[in-house]
Amino acid sequence: MEHVTPIQVRYAETDRMGAAHHSSYLLWFELGRTGLLRASGHPYRDIEAAGVLLPVVETGSRFLRGAEYDDTIVIHTRVTQLRSRAVTFAYRCLRDDELLATGFTRHICVTPQNHPRRLPPDVFDALSSCLTHNDN
Amino acid sequence: MEHVTPIQVRYAETDRMGAAHHSSYLLWFELGRTGLLRASGHPYRDIEAAGVLLPVVETGSRFLRGAEYDDTIVIHTRVTQLRSRAVTFAYRCLRDDELLATGFTRHICVTPQNHPRRLPPDVFDALSSCLTHNDN
Amino acid sequence: MEHVTPIQVRYAETDRMGAAHHSSYLLWFELGRTGLLRASGHPYRDIEAAGVLLPVVETGSRFLRGAEYDDTIVIHTRVTQLRSRAVTFAYRCLRDDELLATGFTRHICVTPQNHPRRLPPDVFDALSSCLTHNDN
Amino acid sequence: MEHVTPIQVRYAETDRMGAAHHSSYLLWFELGRTGLLRASGHPYRDIEAAGVLLPVVETGSRFLRGAEYDDTIVIHTRVTQLRSRAVTFAYRCLRDDELLATGFTRHICVTPQNHPRRLPPDVFDALSSCLTHNDN
Repeated sequence: MEHVTPIQVRYAETDRMGAAHHSSYLLWFELGRTGLLRASGHPYRDIEAAGVLLPVVETGSRFLRGAEYDDTIVIHTRVTQLRSRAVTFAYRCLRDDELLATGFTRHICVTPQNHPRRLPPDVFDALSSCLTHNDN
Repeated sequence: MEHVTPIQVRYAETDRMGAAHHSSYLLWFELGRTGLLRASGHPYRDIEAAGVLLPVVETGSRFLRGAEYDDTIVIHTRVTQLRSRAVTFAYRCLRDDELLATGFTRHICVTPQNHPRRLPPDVFDALSSCLTHNDN
Repeated sequence: MEHVTPIQVRYAETDRMGAAHHSSYLLWFELGRTGLLRASGHPYRDIEAAGVLLPVVETGSRFLRGAEYDDTIVIHTRVTQLRSRAVTFAYRCLRDDELLATGFTRHICVTPQNHPRRLPPDVFDALSSCLTHNDN
Repeated sequence: MEHVTPIQVRYAETDRMGAAHHSSYLLWFELGRTGLLRASGHPYRDIEAAGVLLPVVETGSRFLRGAEYDDTIVIHTRVTQLRSRAVTFAYRCLRDDELLATGFTRHICVTPQNHPRRLPPDVFDALSSCLTHNDN
């Protein structure tokens, strides 16, 4: 299952080269991830309220084409790996049919005191049903 | 007493108009304020660790000239008003002798539970000695 | 006429105090302004493409309550002053019926070479019809 | 040759988890790269003024420990790969002796019209002398 989140490029996200600064994509990935979790029935806000944090421990991105101010970009988000204490999301950013960027974020599951812990069973199950092969 | 903090304009802070986005100045004001507090002997980090928060409740800025990528901008920070439960900082951003922007931030003093409280006496006294007339 | 733009607070927009950093509001004001201009038939992207820039020369904000991660905030945007070479927008940020913040941005109209110029007549007329008394 | 750039974590760079948001590291990498280029005698600002752009086409990061507000972080920057039309920088972020994060950015060399071009010979030579084996 792939989640689809449309975003619009903000003026402040552009830099003097004209297009969106590459760091903006990490923020868009976060919106994609937030959208997927909400759609799965487990908003990240509620996950955190239950004492479960999912900090990013690794990330990577490739940038193929620039995203311009006011462009509508669609973030496609999937779960590509799921462990009892870790999850990886993969992202593709498209403008119409044009692929602008791809990326991933790997997260571990910790307590508010930053100790490793298991994903809650209901979150694990919900993410399982979003899991897809990473044939990107 | 005026505190002086030099900063360098980051690439990511520019927008497609070429110069620094106007929201960057709020971040630079924050660096000026952080610098003044540290110089006063009360780093904001320590103030917060003691359970005293100083959220911004009002801010204003005027922009006269653009700040370009890699420019060195000097932030001049002063305390312009001091109350038992509130403090106002004023800022001037200069590139050499050229005034680029002015602004202020007004802060109230609250507990971590967001209840109003007095500034700690030692912080109040330190800020008192930074207080200047606002003849900007 | 008031334009209404819903936004969702991003995780990256929060700071360690828990709520959205005060600089985020300038970005949300920008989204409100972008939305109003698009609704008026003159997307800012097209205005810039025609060689007309509207840099911010002054801004001010008051913050009443914090905006939390994932909150839906509605930005209400109006034109409160219109001159041949300048325009002022006013903003109110609401979470349901609760007013979180108010603010304004004043813009001048310049060429890409940063020379003052008049607003194009069609943009001026469109903004005129959005002009409201500032009884905020 | 490794270039060393100290930065201080900004309040606005933290998120509600308490430490710096992971996207901040891309901005710090940029400061490291900017510092290395300036030290090499070729400030990026001058490179761009000569019509040579170095957009990021790929990036990756690993996060080991959080960076807290007001921490001084030292960014160690190296050139790890150099081609006639591309360059890769690697970064390590340390707080005292503690490694917080590592990462890289790969850049291609393009004209302002976004056509591939060679790195200018003097920039290529300067980067050559910064080239190190990536044994990180």
